[in-house]
Amino acid sequence: MSAQNSGQNASPLRLGIAGLGTVGTGTVKIIQKHAELLSARAGRPVTITAVSARDRMKNRDVDLSAYGWEADARDLAVRDDVDVFVELVGGDEGIAREAVTAALQAGKDVVTANKALLAIHGQELAELAEANGCVLRFEAAVAGGIPVIKTMTESLAGNEIRRVMGVMNGTCNYILTRMENAGLPYETVFEEARQLGYLEADPTLDVGGIDASHKLAILSSIAFGTRPAFGSVEIEGIERVSIDDIRRAADMGYRIKLLGVAQMTGRGLEQRMSPCLVPADSPLGQLQGGTNMVVIEGDSVGQIVLRGAGAGEGPTASAVMSDIVEIARGVRMPAFAQPATKLAKPIAARTAVPAAYYIRLALADKPGALAKVAAVLGDAGISIDRMRQYGKHDLEGIAPVLIVTHKTTPEAIDIAIEALPRTGVITGEPVELRIEEV
Amino acid sequence: MSAQNSGQNASPLRLGIAGLGTVGTGTVKIIQKHAELLSARAGRPVTITAVSARDRMKNRDVDLSAYGWEADARDLAVRDDVDVFVELVGGDEGIAREAVTAALQAGKDVVTANKALLAIHGQELAELAEANGCVLRFEAAVAGGIPVIKTMTESLAGNEIRRVMGVMNGTCNYILTRMENAGLPYETVFEEARQLGYLEADPTLDVGGIDASHKLAILSSIAFGTRPAFGSVEIEGIERVSIDDIRRAADMGYRIKLLGVAQMTGRGLEQRMSPCLVPADSPLGQLQGGTNMVVIEGDSVGQIVLRGAGAGEGPTASAVMSDIVEIARGVRMPAFAQPATKLAKPIAARTAVPAAYYIRLALADKPGALAKVAAVLGDAGISIDRMRQYGKHDLEGIAPVLIVTHKTTPEAIDIAIEALPRTGVITGEPVELRIEEV
Repeated sequence: MSAQNSGQNASPLRLGIAGLGTVGTGTVKIIQKHAELLSARAGRPVTITAVSARDRMKNRDVDLSAYGWEADARDLAVRDDVDVFVELVGGDEGIAREAVTAALQAGKDVVTANKALLAIHGQELAELAEANGCVLRFEAAVAGGIPVIKTMTESLAGNEIRRVMGVMNGTCNYILTRMENAGLPYETVFEEARQLGYLEADPTLDVGGIDASHKLAILSSIAFGTRPAFGSVEIEGIERVSIDDIRRAADMGYRIKLLGVAQMTGRGLEQRMSPCLVPADSPLGQLQGGTNMVVIEGDSVGQIVLRGAGAGEGPTASAVMSDIVEIARGVRMPAFAQPATKLAKPIAARTAVPAAYYIRLALADKPGALAKVAAVLGDAGISIDRMRQYGKHDLEGIAPVLIVTHKTTPEAIDIAIEALPRTGVITGEPVELRIEEV
Repeated sequence: MSAQNSGQNASPLRLGIAGLGTVGTGTVKIIQKHAELLSARAGRPVTITAVSARDRMKNRDVDLSAYGWEADARDLAVRDDVDVFVELVGGDEGIAREAVTAALQAGKDVVTANKALLAIHGQELAELAEANGCVLRFEAAVAGGIPVIKTMTESLAGNEIRRVMGVMNGTCNYILTRMENAGLPYETVFEEARQLGYLEADPTLDVGGIDASHKLAILSSIAFGTRPAFGSVEIEGIERVSIDDIRRAADMGYRIKLLGVAQMTGRGLEQRMSPCLVPADSPLGQLQGGTNMVVIEGDSVGQIVLRGAGAGEGPTASAVMSDIVEIARGVRMPAFAQPATKLAKPIAARTAVPAAYYIRLALADKPGALAKVAAVLGDAGISIDRMRQYGKHDLEGIAPVLIVTHKTTPEAIDIAIEALPRTGVITGEPVELRIEEV
């Protein structure tokens, strides 16, 4: 099967689409609207054999009458008249996992948008796909319409990847930029986001950094030739990001982003998802609202930045379609850029790459207080790049102090943060945030 | 040949590389440095059979002793022990065209970075490739390391493309940002760029917008399913961009970029390359120095922004390698996303899509002068969004006036610009620049 087929006379690629939420419906719409264009580009028609969803009666604003219906996605996955099983159900267990497994066992190619499934069971599924001569594609699983999987897998094939970074959860970025622009506290904007329907049913998937970490684990695997290792991502959500820190960071020329970073070091694979400071005038710093951005650094290509909508019907369905057209064109690529059996088991390393850090603390109005803080940092081997003490802002004489350190290790920061309260000159817990070089 | 081959035992993909300038040397270096990685990713080794260049004796900082040598690229192109001919000679005629033609006629796949060749002879070469069952790939021809060809051809296959835009000549962007940041006139910075070796031997290829227009013609073809039509790009270079206009535009919140824009309208295909104003805080506006950016708008995906190095040894060689690995993996795609014989001959349309315009003129100190200018614009059907008159800046009482219009047609602007000098109240020619909505 080659893309150089003359086209219209070739046999159609027949899809079974499971899951008719936003993305599933969007995919059906594209196939209906662009039948001719898809056929021209794919070299053969792309058709839908049957669909599956929980509720057959639900009004979905799309005509499904020409397609078969399967009440159970697992039955759809193995139908003889389906070439590609398109899994848009979601969830890392249950129907999604079972149906994808069944499809691969039955020799069907699979396209999915399911980041949790890939991040957690990706290795097993990729091996199963290869054992059965099937392809498993998931462009839509990471950063919606942004072609990051294809870029990593194919466009950067000649590069040793140095680092992958990204803002990959639009809801978190919406919350953080809305806090900054409107000067509102986290709790208020979180509630707004909930009412706007921006949050997952379990909001910790978003604000706890889980969803973004699923995506990071997938990217790491492709970047470094390792098995997906979601379990070893160091994850911190945005719940502790305060409007105070957002404002202070802005004063110093930074913005706070929920940033995922993966890099291979001499100690092993570092994967972290955490609120970080980035320069306000960098592409990552300038990213507003629900838009996503992935930054990839390769030894030859330098830095590549990809930006676009990370979610939503159209963008995510666009990514699903790119996988479908690729299969229709006869392109057969291993799931994670290399044969699954060759992927190394990564050694998970706790973050050790040095960085500058932002520290905010509340200093008591006592003689020598600042000297004590400086001594703690000095003892931990941390030197100070910039420091600002603000005016006392309450009756107890507590003054906010901001410190930007020179590059130091996370271990040194941990030691300092633990030691600071013991000086007796600060109130409450100090806040520390990594300043990622971007 | 499939990527799911177990790898090391598969037959190697044998390259013949013609042209050992920056990109050719960079490509050889990657193949030497990453032999193992490439083999793992491609599913088979990638080897170099022989190379060709003008001067065999030149020191190229890379060991070529293991490869054969052909004095004539056309002989290299047809060698029995070459699977893929890699053309990095450059130029739209002569050796490059002849060798690529010979390679395709001999049934070799071809990878090239040659934008001029593709923009001018792309249709003929794509047809020849398909007639001979060969692939013709050229990721490196547009925007260096940025994976724009693959994104357009594959990732956005489910989209009807609305518009493609880009800053695709790093030298021009370097000149324009350097003018702004240093407050220097065009001539001075042009001379700097020449001394830094940033300019082509024929600098009008860069500053005249030709090189960027070659790239735009290639993108248009893929975006709109039309034959490459370099001849119908409306081209204007950056020679007439003055430091005055850069400063005035900045005052109004804009930056001037050499922007390529292609879009399909009811009247036909519009392709233009010209200095345009874009909002200073947009991704395109923020682009500094030699970096490139391509913005693609699809009906489903919305807006995708790709940013990276548009030239240089590493980035361009990275793009060449992506094509080579793709061929090694057995991926066979038509050159311009659809079979060449199906590409439509585009109807070239002069730019008619309305836009806001920036007009600068030098107004004489005469009663009713501004009223006369306003009347000319009104007669042409142009309404004014913002207007600024600056203090008189010379002894003759000439005051610079800036006008930002509401959206209007290029035709209306042409009428107004032609009529303005006839009012007798302005000195010299008025300057007009399109403000592209990005």
